Amino acid sequence: MKLFYSKGACSLAVRIIINEIGVPAQYESVDLKSKKINTGENFLEINDKGAVPVLELNDGQILTENAIILQYLADTYQATQLLPSLGNFSRFRVLEWVNYITTELHKTFANLFNPTLPEDIKKSIFIPMIQKKFQYINDHLKHDYLVSNTFTLPDGYLYVILRWAHGMKVDISAYKKLKDYFERVDKRESIIKSLAEENE
Amino acid sequence: MKLFYSKGACSLAVRIIINEIGVPAQYESVDLKSKKINTGENFLEINDKGAVPVLELNDGQILTENAIILQYLADTYQATQLLPSLGNFSRFRVLEWVNYITTELHKTFANLFNPTLPEDIKKSIFIPMIQKKFQYINDHLKHDYLVSNTFTLPDGYLYVILRWAHGMKVDISAYKKLKDYFERVDKRESIIKSLAEENE
Repeated sequence: MKLFYSKGACSLAVRIIINEIGVPAQYESVDLKSKKINTGENFLEINDKGAVPVLELNDGQILTENAIILQYLADTYQATQLLPSLGNFSRFRVLEWVNYITTELHKTFANLFNPTLPEDIKKSIFIPMIQKKFQYINDHLKHDYLVSNTFTLPDGYLYVILRWAHGMKVDISAYKKLKDYFERVDKRESIIKSLAEENE
Repeated sequence: MKLFYSKGACSLAVRIIINEIGVPAQYESVDLKSKKINTGENFLEINDKGAVPVLELNDGQILTENAIILQYLADTYQATQLLPSLGNFSRFRVLEWVNYITTELHKTFANLFNPTLPEDIKKSIFIPMIQKKFQYINDHLKHDYLVSNTFTLPDGYLYVILRWAHGMKVDISAYKKLKDYFERVDKRESIIKSLAEENE
């Protein structure tokens, strides 16, 4: 399989899960501004949404949508430590967090990357919204990881968003448990490997 | 089971799926402004996110996140016409659409409901973003429903967003296939029943 990614983008969450599973994969980087793949090809011919991540499966099919690629990988490689099997209710607790990260956190954060949105709107409306969501996560962190003491699908995704917050100076120092979590996850082998692979 | 909902809100997508499956459920309406359940109880004690839908399971557990409640219902009641079983790749095509609707469409639309966001920003930035996503869906509608000629999980959810667009006068007349789709889904039995139940 092949992952189309952009350095440091949310596709990093997929790479982390590929490394957690330990399955081989190829990677092609995409310039999201020019919509060109590093081979020179037009990325829009692969994914007309123009967004990463895109997973090209071994049979040539294309799968999009971060949260669904994560679910596909865990189910396909039976990585039940990352996503419990159907029949185990905790599967839905893991997916509930994945969905919170992708809808509430990622999609609110995406506004900060929107060049048409005025800076004062970002500062007065969207940064406080993001911080409220970080507060929510902080208040619900009761274990080493989001769901339990085991790293599961949403942890890699949340890590990527926390890196963005760090890079964009969205202050998380008020969220002590979240800050400790970020430092803990940052030391994880799959994360170190994934960042090295993207030269981050 | 019991669904906490708010009239016409995205929780309607869950009610539609409950009616598609044909499973009995109780319903409690929530005032999202006061965060009160119609029984007078504080909704935040049920769900401290303060959002609907919330599904209370028969064992008393609470499940949140629309896209995950939909998945839980289809998997639990083995409604494979709404979400194919694991092992059938088309499962991920259905989930890919659910995720697109919840992240790209619903979360962009949510900005129109934000009273702190200036009207000119809604008009100049977020409505065009929504219309671009409607255009994308329009261009990919090749069957009666999103994935095939069978109604699946994302169709109820998209219908709810199209109702919002209609109510808020976000013009979809340029998207002929999407407009026809809306009219087609509007006549579906589960939709008619769901709207009647919410007195919509």
